Amino acid sequence: MAGAAIGGIALGAVGGYSILPAKETIITQDVPLEVPEHPWVYAKLDVDKVKERAYAAYFEHGCSYGAFEGIIGELQDTVGHPFTSMPTIMSKYGKGGTVGFGTLCGALNGASMAMNLVSTDLNMVTEIVGEYTETAYPAWKPVVAKKTDDDLPTSVSGSPLCHVSVTKWCEASGFGSGSNERKERCGRLTAEVAGRTVEILNGMADGTFSAVFANPDSVTGCNGCHGDDGNVANVHAKSDCVQCHADAHDN
Amino acid sequence: MAGAAIGGIALGAVGGYSILPAKETIITQDVPLEVPEHPWVYAKLDVDKVKERAYAAYFEHGCSYGAFEGIIGELQDTVGHPFTSMPTIMSKYGKGGTVGFGTLCGALNGASMAMNLVSTDLNMVTEIVGEYTETAYPAWKPVVAKKTDDDLPTSVSGSPLCHVSVTKWCEASGFGSGSNERKERCGRLTAEVAGRTVEILNGMADGTFSAVFANPDSVTGCNGCHGDDGNVANVHAKSDCVQCHADAHDN
Repeated sequence: MAGAAIGGIALGAVGGYSILPAKETIITQDVPLEVPEHPWVYAKLDVDKVKERAYAAYFEHGCSYGAFEGIIGELQDTVGHPFTSMPTIMSKYGKGGTVGFGTLCGALNGASMAMNLVSTDLNMVTEIVGEYTETAYPAWKPVVAKKTDDDLPTSVSGSPLCHVSVTKWCEASGFGSGSNERKERCGRLTAEVAGRTVEILNGMADGTFSAVFANPDSVTGCNGCHGDDGNVANVHAKSDCVQCHADAHDN
Repeated sequence: MAGAAIGGIALGAVGGYSILPAKETIITQDVPLEVPEHPWVYAKLDVDKVKERAYAAYFEHGCSYGAFEGIIGELQDTVGHPFTSMPTIMSKYGKGGTVGFGTLCGALNGASMAMNLVSTDLNMVTEIVGEYTETAYPAWKPVVAKKTDDDLPTSVSGSPLCHVSVTKWCEASGFGSGSNERKERCGRLTAEVAGRTVEILNGMADGTFSAVFANPDSVTGCNGCHGDDGNVANVHAKSDCVQCHADAHDN
């Protein structure tokens, strides 16, 4: 919290007294500052520090908290106010694709929440979610690993869903969903998602961010008929269609 | 913001002066209060007011913001601090199952975020997500409708995913995904999710909350082998399995 100056003129007027010259009556005290309007002003972060922080936070309260705390917690430490007023633990619910339902990967949920706190540009959220579906995780290792120090097999999910992402990795690696290796994999993935989020946000701060993710061909193709403006118009989504509907027109 | 007393003793000591009797030097000024520890203390809300607020917010910035603003915005108005320090617009990213990817229903994301801000009990999040999958939406109508005042057909998603929920409704209703009726449906659904969330939170405040949702039989059955502790162990999720994998053991 920063010190707030209390002017001598105002104090001097209390009760009609004019008791000290202004220079003598300037005092400072710790006063919480006003919470600013959204979006809160981002300051560039160290990608490696955020990765390590997100990785550690994953093993405290899961993937969604891991990513959100990795980014916003680091802003609390480096910027302070107003980020210190954000209880990062409120993002815990996103773990396991929201309390274990296997929907949106929690690391993506926490990362997206952090992005939306410091920006109104949702193209950056599209970028982190889209890139995730095409990235081979985990490729990063922490300085000190929690569950295993081994290099781990990687897999590409093709989907932003926790369930798909975890199952594809289990099948690619041979490790079970309840194994220490799977937990280590999700911890490292959380770190990488948080780190990539910060790279994107640093790009925003520098004015150099530009999206590279493009919708899969199936989204463009299938939504020609199934999307909002098509003649079928029964889909309002843009995840890859083929992964679940490869045989949609075979029967 | 509440007035904060600044004591005369401290002021009197500035620069070694002892210049006023204490009673004369007590002043008040508006000072923002400290942000309390998580979870922030919930106060019971009016369900109907939250529904109308969430419905209106949906048409501003989408479903996730609709639910989060419907609940937290109402706490801002009725409780004030610390909820006034929460920029509810940070939840906008969840719309359309996170910027249109069709994953977790944005109304559920915003509602879950609100729950986790005022509680550490994630069983309530399981409840709102689980109930959603079994509920026929939309059953509620606003006082003044935005897109159509008609009663709308209902559907049960069987899934917390935006894509499944929207497509099932389009198929049940015959309305297109880009239609005014589909937008009206999602606005009403957002209101109902926010309202049900508040019913659960009011139950928490009264000490009467108890979960009624139970995992589908398929989750219990399939996870016997496919779950974390099974002999296949390639699934870490608890959404209904049959909806996507009805023919899993047919071939």
